[in-house]
Amino acid sequence: MSDVSSPEPLFKRLTLVGVGLIGSSVARIAKHRGDLASEIVVSARTQKTLDRVMELGIADRVELDPGRAVQGADGVMLCAPVGAFADLAAAIAPHLAPGAILTDVGSTKVSVIRDVGPLVPDSVHFVPAHPIAGTEYSGPDSGFITLFENRWTLLTPPPGTDTAAVAKIEELWRRCGSMVETMEPAHHDRVLAIVSHLPHLIAFTICGTADDLEDESREEVLKFAASGFRDFTRIAASDPVMWRDIFLNNRDALLEMLARFMEDAQAMARAVRWGDGTYIEDKVKRSRAIRQSLIELKQA
Amino acid sequence: MSDVSSPEPLFKRLTLVGVGLIGSSVARIAKHRGDLASEIVVSARTQKTLDRVMELGIADRVELDPGRAVQGADGVMLCAPVGAFADLAAAIAPHLAPGAILTDVGSTKVSVIRDVGPLVPDSVHFVPAHPIAGTEYSGPDSGFITLFENRWTLLTPPPGTDTAAVAKIEELWRRCGSMVETMEPAHHDRVLAIVSHLPHLIAFTICGTADDLEDESREEVLKFAASGFRDFTRIAASDPVMWRDIFLNNRDALLEMLARFMEDAQAMARAVRWGDGTYIEDKVKRSRAIRQSLIELKQA
Repeated sequence: MSDVSSPEPLFKRLTLVGVGLIGSSVARIAKHRGDLASEIVVSARTQKTLDRVMELGIADRVELDPGRAVQGADGVMLCAPVGAFADLAAAIAPHLAPGAILTDVGSTKVSVIRDVGPLVPDSVHFVPAHPIAGTEYSGPDSGFITLFENRWTLLTPPPGTDTAAVAKIEELWRRCGSMVETMEPAHHDRVLAIVSHLPHLIAFTICGTADDLEDESREEVLKFAASGFRDFTRIAASDPVMWRDIFLNNRDALLEMLARFMEDAQAMARAVRWGDGTYIEDKVKRSRAIRQSLIELKQA
Repeated sequence: MSDVSSPEPLFKRLTLVGVGLIGSSVARIAKHRGDLASEIVVSARTQKTLDRVMELGIADRVELDPGRAVQGADGVMLCAPVGAFADLAAAIAPHLAPGAILTDVGSTKVSVIRDVGPLVPDSVHFVPAHPIAGTEYSGPDSGFITLFENRWTLLTPPPGTDTAAVAKIEELWRRCGSMVETMEPAHHDRVLAIVSHLPHLIAFTICGTADDLEDESREEVLKFAASGFRDFTRIAASDPVMWRDIFLNNRDALLEMLARFMEDAQAMARAVRWGDGTYIEDKVKRSRAIRQSLIELKQA
């Protein structure tokens, strides 16, 4: 928040389509700093959410209809689950102002470029982006102004994207407190598959495995969760629709990483079955080294 | 720490064999409260560890030889990795005082009863126990006096164990701040397999999977770890020998829970491959419900 390099707002009107954890954090930061946009417009699927947004005072105006919401905006940010992007893009495309920048915050980038890209008018700049930040909470109440601090935002602009538009989105995320890097979309999806999507898939799965145990053991799972299981439940307490959409829209990379993990888990099972203590010790030592690297990188 | 129900120490001399996170926490609590034992004796594998224990001032006396360490003790607690228990039990058995209580803190209970039980002299009471508490740190410096507060300790006394001896170990753990419950050893091992051993196995495995990626992606795993992966590395940063021993000594229950998990992960993979969004959403919803239950039980 410290780097208020320019008092000039980046956008005259920034429309956020979707207002969950990410969207409502951006709205709060915009209100707090004043230099993201002169006007913040928010669109969401339900009037109830929009009423809450106005109660929270984090938007200047709300619009149920996304087409109306983007009219006259020089910046538009899609903040909905990625599975909704194709329909949203179709709904807003005819209403986008010439010269506007369209960006998004989706956790999958190949699918976003596939679903949104072809619908973007030639006069509009499309800059896909992904702020890698989150908590287990969702909805307009869950946002907060420090969410992006010391976190990365990855930009995946298709070849030929207007450099001034990319620079503007980069500056927006820097003003949100984020570090910014550019990445090739398919590479982004592979990296996110291993650091985020697979860990979430595993966390959801083990919660299900525990929940399927006979009743007595299920109660004990909750009672004695502090011994490891608990750490999995935090990341498993995430938004169902958002994660459904991420899994379905990063299918190939996620299935590849899952297949690698399953091979490794089978190898571990074999070591346990046949008493290969050296193999197990080696795996734990490598895990410790990774944790140590994270601590050194101040990411732990 | 608040319930100092009796000023009378439970033991005249309590010997801790092993002084990692658990042992050094018990030693600190004994020093802090004064009512666990009049004298604390610590034994460890290396003189260096024992020197550190004396520096820390958490024992009255240290002994490299475990047989000498337990001489004259009315309480003996095995705090080493469970794979060392058979040898340790053989070493101390001839030196145990008649009427003494032998207990342990191992994370597997069937194996401890199998390895230690037959070596315990008839005149000695054997009360297997497992305080379910931990951090990712180990060694004599890692202990602290609040480690067991609001955590459970499970006692798994074999049939016919002296009830006064069981009550004394129960009181010891209560004075350490723990809640105490009695459980059948095989049931204990199944419950711990799902709440602790499997989550650790999975965390070690995914760290290895990430570490095996091509170099560029490995660096990015560390850089973008905040998006989920990080949560797995904390529990993966654990003691290699301790976990090797736990896995090898809870083999059957761990392999069963791992097999269930693998089936569930395959089902999730299938849902991702074939676009079964309802299946995925349902799993995430169930995970959220489990997290909610933990929060309500104040275990999250």
